[in-house]
Amino acid sequence: MRVYADNAATTKMSRKAIDAMLPYLDIIYGNPSGLYEEGRSARNAVDNARTRIGNRFGCSGKEIIFTSGGSEADTQAVITAASIGEKQGKKHMISTAFEHHAVLNALKSLKTRGFEVTLIDIPEEGIVKPGQIQKALREDTCMVSVMYANNEIGTIQPISEIGKICREHNVLFHTDAVQAAGHISIDVVRDNIDMMSISAHKFHGPKGAGALYTRKGIRAAGVIFGGAQERGRRAGTENVPAIMGMAAALDEACELMEINADRTVKLRNRLIDGLSEIPHSMLNGSRSSRLPGNISFSFEAVEGETMLILLDQKGISASSGSVDPSHVITALGRPHEIALGTLRLTIGEETTEKEIDYIIASVKSTVETLRSCSSVWRELQAGRRKYVLK
Amino acid sequence: MRVYADNAATTKMSRKAIDAMLPYLDIIYGNPSGLYEEGRSARNAVDNARTRIGNRFGCSGKEIIFTSGGSEADTQAVITAASIGEKQGKKHMISTAFEHHAVLNALKSLKTRGFEVTLIDIPEEGIVKPGQIQKALREDTCMVSVMYANNEIGTIQPISEIGKICREHNVLFHTDAVQAAGHISIDVVRDNIDMMSISAHKFHGPKGAGALYTRKGIRAAGVIFGGAQERGRRAGTENVPAIMGMAAALDEACELMEINADRTVKLRNRLIDGLSEIPHSMLNGSRSSRLPGNISFSFEAVEGETMLILLDQKGISASSGSVDPSHVITALGRPHEIALGTLRLTIGEETTEKEIDYIIASVKSTVETLRSCSSVWRELQAGRRKYVLK
Repeated sequence: MRVYADNAATTKMSRKAIDAMLPYLDIIYGNPSGLYEEGRSARNAVDNARTRIGNRFGCSGKEIIFTSGGSEADTQAVITAASIGEKQGKKHMISTAFEHHAVLNALKSLKTRGFEVTLIDIPEEGIVKPGQIQKALREDTCMVSVMYANNEIGTIQPISEIGKICREHNVLFHTDAVQAAGHISIDVVRDNIDMMSISAHKFHGPKGAGALYTRKGIRAAGVIFGGAQERGRRAGTENVPAIMGMAAALDEACELMEINADRTVKLRNRLIDGLSEIPHSMLNGSRSSRLPGNISFSFEAVEGETMLILLDQKGISASSGSVDPSHVITALGRPHEIALGTLRLTIGEETTEKEIDYIIASVKSTVETLRSCSSVWRELQAGRRKYVLK
Repeated sequence: MRVYADNAATTKMSRKAIDAMLPYLDIIYGNPSGLYEEGRSARNAVDNARTRIGNRFGCSGKEIIFTSGGSEADTQAVITAASIGEKQGKKHMISTAFEHHAVLNALKSLKTRGFEVTLIDIPEEGIVKPGQIQKALREDTCMVSVMYANNEIGTIQPISEIGKICREHNVLFHTDAVQAAGHISIDVVRDNIDMMSISAHKFHGPKGAGALYTRKGIRAAGVIFGGAQERGRRAGTENVPAIMGMAAALDEACELMEINADRTVKLRNRLIDGLSEIPHSMLNGSRSSRLPGNISFSFEAVEGETMLILLDQKGISASSGSVDPSHVITALGRPHEIALGTLRLTIGEETTEKEIDYIIASVKSTVETLRSCSSVWRELQAGRRKYVLK
C-alpha cells in the first residue's frame, strides 16, 4: 500500500489541469507578446485565465500578477511593501514567527535597506490574535504580513480582522495564502487583503505557477527584471501552459471546495482521534480552526526524521513539516526535542478511510518501535526525566 | 499558408521535450524535498537533468541553478555580481547598449545601491570589440555582462576574448546566452564565462524554465527568497516537469546542432539574398557572424508594426524585434525612423525552402504596398528628402 499524505508539500495534478495545459505545450505555443495569430491565441488564453483566477478571489484579473510560484509572489509582496514604505519614510514591518521562509527571508533581506521587523509570537493554539497585531503597529509600520493558514500546523488565521485593523491604520496587508487557496474560501474584499500570494501546485495545479494579487492602486515593485510583461510588474515570457493549468485547477478546487472539505475534515478528525490514542503525543494547533487536510502531531521521545524513513518503508509519504527543528513548532513554545518529534500528515481529496486507518496503525507501531530503542524514553519511563507532553 | 518566423520570441516544443515532461505532470508528482519515494523520484530526475544540462556547456551540474526563465537568470546574475562587488567595494559594471532588457533593467535597479554602469556603444556590424571592454574597465569594475548573441539582430559576440580580458582583470563575466544556447556551441571553460543565463523555450523546451550557470566559487545571491532549494540559491519548489523538458530539449538541440545549423544557415542566406533585392533596405548586423536562424532588415519609409500586421494577414508570423523603436537598432547608430522600419525574421529547423520563398515574395509586396501609400517615400522619390539606406 502506498499512501501519499504530504499534500501540503505538493499535490498530484488533476486530470482537468493537465488537459488544460496540453494544447499550450504543443499547438498553441505562441509568445503572448507576438503581434500575430500564434501570439494572439496565447494572449487571449492568458487573459482569460487571469480573469477566472481573479474572480475566484473576488478581484479583477487586472489585479493578478502571474509569478513562477508562491515564493516569488511572497518575495514580490515584501519588496513591493518595502519600496512603497521607503517612499513614505516608513521602514517597519510586522509579521509572525511562524511564517513561511519566503516571507521571513524576504523580510531579512530588507535589513540592509534599514528596515525593522517585528515578528509576533504565536499563541499555543497556533492562531495569531488580532490584538497582537494592533499592539505591534507603529507610526512607521508600512506592512503587516500574516499567512492565511500555516503550512505546518494548518491553523487558519483571523485574516479579515487583521486586515480590518491594517485598513484602519493605513498599513498594507499581505497574506501568504499558498496553503489556503483552493482549500478554503478566500475573498480579498471580505478579508480586507491588499496583497496575496498563491501557488498552483498546492491545489492540484502545475508546479512553476503562482500569482500575486495586488489591490488596484498598489504598484508592485519588480523582482525579476526585463520586458514589459504583466504590465511591467513581472518580466519574462508568460508561462502560458502553467497559467492555463493553474486556472483550471483553481476552478475545479473552488467548485468542489465544500464537498471536498466536508469529506476531508471527517477523515482528518478520524486521523486526529486515532493518533491521539498514542500516549505522550499532542496535536499541534487548534483542532477546529485548521485546514481540512492538515494533521500535525508531536510525539515525546521520537526523532521525526527517523519516523519519516520508517513510515516511508511502510508506504506512507509524510513530512516533518519543515527544516529541523521546525521554527513553527518552536514558535508555539515547544522545546526543541519536542519540535524534532513532529509529524505532518496532509491528506487530500483522494485519501480513503482505509488509508487513514492504515496511517493510524503504522504511526502507532512506528512510535512504539522508536521509543523501544530510545534512551530518552527509558529515562522518562523510569521517572528520571519529566514528560513534556501529557 | 502559415509560416512561423519568430523563433527568437519562442519556439514550438519538440515532441521529445513534451514527452519528457508528461510523466512529471502526472504520475511522478512528488516534491523533490520529500523524504519518501515520490520525493526521491523527483529529486533523482532533477539531479539527472542538472548534470546533463551542465555537461552540455562543459560545466558541472553543481554549477547550475534552475530558474523560471532567462529574465530571472539575468536578474540573478546582476544581483549576484552586485552583492560580490559591494563586499569588495567595487561598484562599477560594464555592459552593452544592445543587451536584453533583463540585463539593462536589472542594472538600472542597482542605481539606488550606488552602482555606476558603463554601456558600450555597438559598432555598425553589431559586434562588440573586446578592446572596447578593455578600455572601459576601471579599478572598481566588478562585472562585465555581454550577451552571447543579440536577440534582435542575431550577431554573435567575441565571448571568449571578452571573458579572457575579464579573467585577466579579475572581473566577473556574465553572458546572457538565451538566444545562443542550443543553437551554437557554448563551452563555459573555453569561453571564460563566470555566469551564464539560458532559457528553455528558446530551444524547443518549455516556457517557465531557465538556468543560471555560476562558476564554482561564486556564491549566487538570492532573488527569490524562501526555502533551501537549489542549495539555498533559489527558493521555491523545483518545477520538475519543466526542468525535465528543458534537459530533453537541450540534449536534442545539441545533438542536432551542426545538422540544423547547416540547413538553417542556407535558408537564412537565401532569405537575406531575397530581401536584399528590395531597394533601400539593409541587413542589420554582420552577415556571417550571426545566429543560424536570424534575419533582421531595416526598410526605408516603412512602418514596422504595420508591416507585421500585413504579414500576419498573409500568414507570416514575424517581429519588429523589440519595443518600438528598438534600442538595439538605434544602438547600431541608425536614426529612429529607420529603427521603426525594422523586421526580424527568425527561422528554425522546421522552416522549408518553400516558406522562405513565400516570405521573400510577401515581404517584397508588403514593402511595396506600404511605400505606395507613404508620404515619406514620395518625398524620397521626388528627391525632396535624402535616402538613409542605399
